[in-house]
Amino acid sequence: MTTDTPAELSPTEALDAARRDFRTRLIDAGLLIPTGLDGLYGRSGEFEAVIEGIDHAIRAAGRAAHGERPRVVRFPPVFPRADFEKTDYIASFPNLTGAISTFDGDNKAHRALLADREAGLPWDGHLASAGTMLVSAACHPTYATLPKTIGPDGELRDVYGYCFRHEPSIDPARMQAFRMHEYVYVGDRAGAEQHRDQWVPRGLQVLSDLGLEADAVPANDPFFGRAGRILAVNQLEENLKTELVVRLYGDLSDGTAVVSANCHRDHFGENFGIASADGDVANSACVGFGMERIALALLTTHGLATSAWPAPVRAAMGL
Amino acid sequence: MTTDTPAELSPTEALDAARRDFRTRLIDAGLLIPTGLDGLYGRSGEFEAVIEGIDHAIRAAGRAAHGERPRVVRFPPVFPRADFEKTDYIASFPNLTGAISTFDGDNKAHRALLADREAGLPWDGHLASAGTMLVSAACHPTYATLPKTIGPDGELRDVYGYCFRHEPSIDPARMQAFRMHEYVYVGDRAGAEQHRDQWVPRGLQVLSDLGLEADAVPANDPFFGRAGRILAVNQLEENLKTELVVRLYGDLSDGTAVVSANCHRDHFGENFGIASADGDVANSACVGFGMERIALALLTTHGLATSAWPAPVRAAMGL
Repeated sequence: MTTDTPAELSPTEALDAARRDFRTRLIDAGLLIPTGLDGLYGRSGEFEAVIEGIDHAIRAAGRAAHGERPRVVRFPPVFPRADFEKTDYIASFPNLTGAISTFDGDNKAHRALLADREAGLPWDGHLASAGTMLVSAACHPTYATLPKTIGPDGELRDVYGYCFRHEPSIDPARMQAFRMHEYVYVGDRAGAEQHRDQWVPRGLQVLSDLGLEADAVPANDPFFGRAGRILAVNQLEENLKTELVVRLYGDLSDGTAVVSANCHRDHFGENFGIASADGDVANSACVGFGMERIALALLTTHGLATSAWPAPVRAAMGL
Repeated sequence: MTTDTPAELSPTEALDAARRDFRTRLIDAGLLIPTGLDGLYGRSGEFEAVIEGIDHAIRAAGRAAHGERPRVVRFPPVFPRADFEKTDYIASFPNLTGAISTFDGDNKAHRALLADREAGLPWDGHLASAGTMLVSAACHPTYATLPKTIGPDGELRDVYGYCFRHEPSIDPARMQAFRMHEYVYVGDRAGAEQHRDQWVPRGLQVLSDLGLEADAVPANDPFFGRAGRILAVNQLEENLKTELVVRLYGDLSDGTAVVSANCHRDHFGENFGIASADGDVANSACVGFGMERIALALLTTHGLATSAWPAPVRAAMGL
């Protein structure tokens, strides 16, 4: 494969070539292990050490901001469909979701499944919902586990886990399965806004400590379809989402969001039946660190040889 | 909920009561966070520290056994369906699998999905395969990434990740989503047998260092259906699977498998097209440590207050 970028490439082609080249270099260095599907990779021990180092810096920022207040909770990558329904994710991002099905039939039904499989036919029709969904955002499983009435100081959660989004891409920074570390606040509206606002400079500081140049930009989620365009405009107008972006591909793109800070207003409070201390529907906000994206930003900024990274960066990572 | 175990309970009822009681105590202590679905739990920070401590002991055993030879690889909880197919898992354990589907339609199709959802109808019929499956055993994604011809010393992999098995249960030791740390060998038959055989005493030593009483017993997988019974008998007769079991519920059960050491013969070598150095189809073997089960064994053995665990146990965990 050639990694040249001839002058006659269109901007889109040049960006695609840069993404492909970066992915090839990551694979050749053994940091990512291809699985044959775009966006799904194994990770080397060295890559995992980078992830752990990034988390070291994030945890330090979390402690500086909140002390020991956030309750640490970790969820597996699947959660109940009943809770997924309450997120309304299927309305806004159907194309990114992952629903889980399994086989719950008898011997005869299993023989029918295997006969289709032998014949090279799809066998999904023999499966039924497992009652679970893949987690789309690390904080999603949290809301159902919160008290139904939040105390006056609000609830803080430290959540970290694997997320799934079905958006195959040659861009290594757009993975189908990736980790997100979040600090989530649930309480009143002022507290939620403050949480979001304060985590923007904190997030920028974490990235700066890691030697990354990042910008905070107003952003919107990639809501699906025509109706989604209205949601996106509203989100921008209400200034609900701020992304911290790093230019992984120089001037070829507007940058890659590696952290996002979000006000959810009363969306989760309403759907999960959570009240704030003053009796109103609870508001929530979160900051999410995209672990793989920050790792890739570090690798493209400081080089693929992690042992040769600048001393202050390695120190911030506890390496 | 009462947790008494009156004398008139049948052995099955008594075991169920013990499992339910253990689960209630874990939840009351905040170590597990219920999600409303049997077998799916959030984990507290303290629980996660136990998992990390167990892994500390496992890594020490891995280093003592293999030095730096095993290549560390980490896979996300989903992997390509094409590779899942090669494991033949759908033939042997259809009831445990997790297939992933997503929405790949247009605006109109999405409106139809949402209309069904509004009407309270299932909306799975609007989804299509995402081309991925949940990982059933941590080693499964590894085989497709191995060289097609293995060198004379064999290949060693250190694999760790989340696994999914759809078997809802009130037993906290039977989770739908749990972590498994494996050492995998792929090479010739003698090497595979040696790997399996040597990891039985090593696994027992790890458990002993953690203050757990365990027994090594010949075992078989829970193959599905009538045909599966023959597979299970063969597995036992050929002595392919050894489980290390700990009595989580005293004499009420035969014990819970917390580690398993397995010879796969040429199953994966054949299906993934891997040859050993001598040109034969490669054999493989693995040892898998069930992280959540070992954590639960520790909690029932040493008590729910992890800071009060015996000093030698905490030392083995690097605590």
